[in-house]
Amino acid sequence: MFTIDPAFPPTSQALGDLRLSHVRLQADARFPWIVLIPRVAGAVELEDLAAEDRDMLMDEVLRCGGAVRAVGEALGRPVEKLNVGQLGNITRQLHIHVVGRRGDDPAWPGPVWGPGAAEPYSAAELATAIAMAQASLGL
Amino acid sequence: MFTIDPAFPPTSQALGDLRLSHVRLQADARFPWIVLIPRVAGAVELEDLAAEDRDMLMDEVLRCGGAVRAVGEALGRPVEKLNVGQLGNITRQLHIHVVGRRGDDPAWPGPVWGPGAAEPYSAAELATAIAMAQASLGL
Repeated sequence: MFTIDPAFPPTSQALGDLRLSHVRLQADARFPWIVLIPRVAGAVELEDLAAEDRDMLMDEVLRCGGAVRAVGEALGRPVEKLNVGQLGNITRQLHIHVVGRRGDDPAWPGPVWGPGAAEPYSAAELATAIAMAQASLGL
Repeated sequence: MFTIDPAFPPTSQALGDLRLSHVRLQADARFPWIVLIPRVAGAVELEDLAAEDRDMLMDEVLRCGGAVRAVGEALGRPVEKLNVGQLGNITRQLHIHVVGRRGDDPAWPGPVWGPGAAEPYSAAELATAIAMAQASLGL
C-alpha cells in the first residue's frame, strides 16, 4: 500500500492528488517549488513505474511547471527557468522536484538541492501559493 | 536547424544519437554520467517538446539510466542510485542529466551540479565507459 514517506510532511504542504502523483508545495519561500510523489508503493527509480505511468508522470511534471509559474507570478517573482530533478539520495521514495528559478534567487545558477536553509513563507504568501498552485492544477 | 550548444563538447564525449536525443558521456570520472540533448531546435524547457517527443524523452532517460549502470559496473563502481536533472540555468539548450550515484562518491548525498571540479578519466577508463554506454544504448 502506498503511503507518503514521513520526511515529506515537515517540509511541505499537501496540494492534492493528480491521477498518478500526490502533489505538495515545498515550504520554502525562496523558490516556487512543487514535489510530485507517484502513488506507487515501493517505487524508487523512474524504471520502477510502468510505461503508461511514466508518460503520465511526464505530463504531470509539465502541469506542475505551469503551477510553479502561476505561484511565482502571484507572488510577484515570475519564473525565468524551470528546474526538474529526481534525486532521492536522502529520501528514497520516488519523488520529482519542479522548481521555478530566477537570476536573483539565492541559489542561482546552482541547483536548489543542498545549499542554504529553507525560508518559511509568511502566512499570507503561503495561502496565496497554495491557492494558485491548486487552481493551476485543477485541485 | 538543430545544432549542439558549444558548451557541451569541451565537457563531454559524443556517444551517438537516439531517436530523439543526441547523447553524450560527461567527461568526469567522479560519476558515470550521460547528457541527453533532444534534437529539437530552440527547445529550452520540457514544455517546448511535442507530447510524443516528451514520451520518447522519458523512454530515452530510462535507457540512459541503464547505460549509466553499465558504465558504473564496468568501472567497478556499481551505481546505487540514479539522479536525473533538467536544469539549464547556465546552458539554456534543453538537456537532461542522468547520473549514477554511490554513497562513496565525492558529492554524496548532494547533487552533482555545482560543487567540486570534474576529474578527467584515464584514457583506458574513458574508452571503457564510452564502449559500455554505446553497447547498452545500441549505438
